[in-house]
Formats: sequence, C-alpha cells, structure tokens
Amino acid sequence: MSRSIDLAVIPGDGIGQEVVTQGLKVLNAVLPQDVKLETKEYDLGAQRWHRTGETLPDAELEALKGHDAILLGAIGDPSVPSGVLERGLLLKLRFAFDHFINLRPSKLFPNTATPLAGRPEIDFVVVREGTEGPYTGNGGSLRTGTEHEVATEVSVNTAYGVERVVRDAFARAAARPRKKLTLVHKNNVLVYAGHLWKNTFDKVAAEFPEVSTDYLHVDAATIFFVTQPERFDVIVTDNLFGDILTDLAAAVTGGIGLAASGNINPTGAFPSMFEPVHGTAPDIAGQGKADPTATILSVALLLRHLGYEAEAVRIEDAVSADLAERDGATPRTTDEIGDALAVRV
Amino acid sequence: MSRSIDLAVIPGDGIGQEVVTQGLKVLNAVLPQDVKLETKEYDLGAQRWHRTGETLPDAELEALKGHDAILLGAIGDPSVPSGVLERGLLLKLRFAFDHFINLRPSKLFPNTATPLAGRPEIDFVVVREGTEGPYTGNGGSLRTGTEHEVATEVSVNTAYGVERVVRDAFARAAARPRKKLTLVHKNNVLVYAGHLWKNTFDKVAAEFPEVSTDYLHVDAATIFFVTQPERFDVIVTDNLFGDILTDLAAAVTGGIGLAASGNINPTGAFPSMFEPVHGTAPDIAGQGKADPTATILSVALLLRHLGYEAEAVRIEDAVSADLAERDGATPRTTDEIGDALAVRV
Ligand SMILES: CC(C)[C@H](C(=O)O)[C@@H](O)C(=O)O
Ligand SMILES: CC(C)[C@H](C(=O)O)[C@@H](O)C(=O)O
Repeated sequence: MSRSIDLAVIPGDGIGQEVVTQGLKVLNAVLPQDVKLETKEYDLGAQRWHRTGETLPDAELEALKGHDAILLGAIGDPSVPSGVLERGLLLKLRFAFDHFINLRPSKLFPNTATPLAGRPEIDFVVVREGTEGPYTGNGGSLRTGTEHEVATEVSVNTAYGVERVVRDAFARAAARPRKKLTLVHKNNVLVYAGHLWKNTFDKVAAEFPEVSTDYLHVDAATIFFVTQPERFDVIVTDNLFGDILTDLAAAVTGGIGLAASGNINPTGAFPSMFEPVHGTAPDIAGQGKADPTATILSVALLLRHLGYEAEAVRIEDAVSADLAERDGATPRTTDEIGDALAVRV
Repeated sequence: MSRSIDLAVIPGDGIGQEVVTQGLKVLNAVLPQDVKLETKEYDLGAQRWHRTGETLPDAELEALKGHDAILLGAIGDPSVPSGVLERGLLLKLRFAFDHFINLRPSKLFPNTATPLAGRPEIDFVVVREGTEGPYTGNGGSLRTGTEHEVATEVSVNTAYGVERVVRDAFARAAARPRKKLTLVHKNNVLVYAGHLWKNTFDKVAAEFPEVSTDYLHVDAATIFFVTQPERFDVIVTDNLFGDILTDLAAAVTGGIGLAASGNINPTGAFPSMFEPVHGTAPDIAGQGKADPTATILSVALLLRHLGYEAEAVRIEDAVSADLAERDGATPRTTDEIGDALAVRV
C-alpha cells in the first residue's frame, strides 16, 4: 500500500468549499502519522467560467491525471446556463477518467430523520454505470428554435461498458452478507438497451452462483424504495436511472446531506473522484449551515478505494456514532460537525 | 353532450378482468338513466398472444377507432417476453391514437396508508407526454449478442409534441385553485431535449401569466415527492420521467391500487383510453383480492373526458367517502369494493 496520497481537490461552487474543508480536516485526522498527504487545489467551477470562459482546460485535465484521487465539493451555479458546467466539467471528468463505477451507498443511520414512516432498515448500495447511457452527449437538435424543431438524446450502451459495471456489482454483492443483486432497467420499453443489460446480467450471474438476483423496472423500483427499501442490497443500473434512484435513496435515508459517492475507475488507469451527491446549495452557501457529512463519507470511500480500509471504517463508524449521539434539536455548524468527526475518528 | 357512450373494453391479463368488471359496475350505477351505454369487449393480451401470436391486429385497431373511449384493465404476463405486449399492444394503442396527454392525478385520500411519516397533503396531477421521448421505439442494436454489441435508445422530442402537452398542462394548472405548474426534466445533462422542453415551457408560460411556474431536475423531483409532496400542483414532464414519477407518486399516496390514468387525445380525433396505473399482478389474479379503485377512478377520468363532469365528481367523492369510512382492519374483496362504490355514487 502506498504510504502517501497525492490528492487533487476541486472545491467548486456554493457550499463546495465549506464541505471540502471539513472533508480534508477529517482526512488529516484519520490518516496514520506515516502517510504523507499532499493536496493540490484546482480552481474550477462557476467563478472560473465567469472569469475566463473555461470549464476544464486540457492542461488541467492533464495535471489532474497525475493525482492518486480527486475530492470534489460541488459544481454549478444558477448564473451559469444549465449544462455548461455539468457537461464541460463534471461529466467531462467522469468520462475522461472513465469512471464507469458510480458508487452510491445508502444507509439509514441511527437517529436520522427519514420521511418514511416506521423507519425501515435501509442499507444498500447503488452501482450506477458512469460512462454510457443517455449521458454520452449523443444527440442533437434540428431546426432549433422553430416550430419544426426535433431534439434527440441517444442512450448508448455497449456490451463492454455494461459487462464491466455488472461484473463489478456482482463482485460487490458477493462480498456483502446478504449477497443480493437487483438489476434495475426498463426493458419492457427500452427493449434494445434493456436486452443488452438483461442478457449481460444473466450471463455474469452464472459466474456468481452465490449471489441471488432479481430484476425490477425503474418505475417499480421507486415504489419499493419507499415501501420496502429493506429488500435491497446491491442495485446495478444505468447512468440515468442511477441518477434518479440515488437522489430518491438519499431522500429516504435522511437527505442528501448524508449521501456520498465515488466515481471510480477500478483499473487504476485514471484517478477516481469522490464527491457528495448534493449540489452547491447557493441559498445556504457561506453561512456555515451546510452539512459536510456527505463529503466526509465520500472521503471514506476515497480511503477504501486507495486501500485504507481501516481508516474508511473509522470514518463511517464515527459518522454513525456522531449521528446516534447528536442532539437533533440544536443545529450544528458545518465546522462543528467537521470538528466532531475529526475528534472521533 | 352525447347521451350515449359506445365503450370499448380491453380487460387484458391478470387482475385486469376483475377490476374492469367493477369499473363497469360503477359506470352503470353512476350514469343517468337516459344515457345509453354500449360496451364491446376486445380479447387482447397475453392469452390471445399465446393462442394466435397476435398482439393488436389491424382490424381490431380499426374497430377500436370507432368507439367513444376505451377502458383497459391491465396488460402483461411473465410468460410473454418483456416488451412484446408493451410495445405491440399497450404502447401501440397510445401511439396509434395519438394519446399525447397521459394524465395521472395523485391524491392522498383520507384514511389511506402512505409510507410517508406525517401524512403530508398530497393533491397533484402529472401531465405526462405520451407519444414521444424514449418511448418512440427508435433505437437498435448492432452486433447483437456479441462482445461488441452496441444498443441505442433514441429519445425523440419535437416542438409540435412538446408544445401541445405543455399548453395542455398550463390550461389544467390555470383551472386549478393553486395555479402552479412545475416542469420536470434533466436539462443539465439531456441538453438538446432539455432546451426544447424549457424553451417551449417558457414561451407558453407567457400566455398564462396567472400560472406560477418552476423547474426541477427529475432527480431532485423524486426528493420532493417524499419530503415535500404538498409543493406540487400540476407537473408536466416527458414520457419516461412521467412513467417513473407517477409510480412514485402512486406509492406515496397509498399505492398503485388507487392510481388512475387517462391516455387522452384532447382533439377527439381518436378515442382516449383509461386504465389503472398498476399492472396485471398475476400473483393475486382470480382471487378477488385486487383493489378495483384505481380502475373506478379511471372511469371517473373517462366520464370527465366525455363531458360527464358531475358523474366523474360523484365517483371521486364516493371513493373519498368510502376510504374515509372503511374499516382498514378487514380486507374487502374486489367485488365488495365495487359494490360499495356502486351504491355510493
Ligand atoms: C449535476 C449532474 C450532472 C449529476 C448527474 O446527473 O450525474 C448529479 O445529479 C449527480 O447525481 O451526480
Ligand atoms: C407497461 C408499461 C409499458 C407502461 C409504461 O411504461 O408507460 C406502464 O409502466 C405505465 O406507466 O403505464
């Protein structure tokens, strides 16, 4: 295991800087003394775009490649046209670094408010495909702005792309106590992509006889997320369905203030990137109100990815204990939550 | 107003027949004496496909055209490959009859179990586009079944198609007390389709200054469905997002046993089709366990569409009263629920 971590940090916009500061605080606190942590901050996001018109220049993309991993806060601002930073920066990174595993664990921590009655046990992981589907940017528009406009979006799915994420999801399911994997798609309507996903899933399933499997249409899956979330262990799904389901998963497990994610390239060919699922929340930015827990849990995923399993578990346990013991009545500042977790780890 | 209704009935598969029987029972009970109701049943669905290989022959499609409206139970069976009946029958009807308004009201009725804590007030309508988006069947697969397979799905969106559903949604919002319309899309990623939807929405908004508007990404919308569903009044969205959101909406308002829908062609050029949102539930078919309420509420939408507003309201009020007064502890049979509602209307 490497005893140094060379980390790229992209704080981004809105509450991004605040939550990243706490993530780094906890990272510093949890790392063994002999691990050398180097961080380099990249000024990317809305302000940079307003200043220079750049989203992610080639030189910076190249420089980012040299790091062991990337920690990202949040990207986006209402002042930037929708899609510019998403396509030009966030998705560009996911695609350029071939982050084909978008890993999003969902757990209902003790003492955490859920909108669901009866507090079901929730502890599942969504393995969202990260480099294909409707996110490829394939599409276009004809006779734009006229009454004859036709706009298309093409979901692209390859055997190569589907198989690698499905295999990864099976391996993750096999490593968990319940060993259960659910494929979510919409193969009764999206028959071409659906067949590719389903056939690949069935083929890879043969290699993992110990994993029990099932299939749900995406619409039905949303029902079970609110009526029976305890039925899920690992879910594998396409890029867009994964986007939708993980926001819903975050909501039922206490809100996106707690939802962590990893954009992972398991081959190590490129740095993986860890970020909270939430956005930039411009309405509360700079006020110390943002919950940095999602970023701190993303740091745990980062550590696990780099081989620091014990440290990852310490962060997750600290979050769990912190939430269990907190006094829900008194809201804590971003800084206070970061401090509390840094002390605990 | 026409004082006769010539209704096509497609009971379909699974619980379809049972729920349709109750729907017709209530329809007969609510209609004024002088309205002549004629029904003709069409044998379409899984059994027909097994017997003849046919999903929807041209002659039957042609015959269906002659009716004032269609009442459909549910279509599909595990014994039929996924997609065959969906594409060959259900979606074929929606597309052939240009059902561009897929209307799905969601209301949390009194005394109804919701998985949400705190029983928020829920009363919104999703206006789902019904003839475009990823449902067009555009797409294909190359090198199928090999490791080099590429499968695509094309979402097709036209100014014509988007504008007519958006305008319909604005009109519906304008007619409701809260006069609020939310556009749901994913225009930060699906930029081509997203721009068409957003620009059309903004353009039509100018014609409805009394309607307040907002926009949500589909992932964020799922969060609000469980944390703040009372914020919604009318939602307009694309075919696939509407599919996903309306199942979630059904779940939070007490389950798909209550969710009604109309596949509407407001021009009257073709018959509109009314169906419960739920599927065929083969596990409980034939046991008298199915809740026919969704079908009965779909009959209310059918009546409203044909101009029988008072009768539609009577059904909706009957459902509301029935749910409020029922004894949740004793489950009722399909027949008992139908009888109770037929008496009330
Ligand atoms: C910001 C947006 C491009 C992104 C996505 O759609 O993937 C976000 O919603 C997420 O889930 O990380
Ligand atoms: C059965 C299926 C084709 C259909 C759809 O996707 O529209 C259903 O889920 C619905 O919502 O009516």
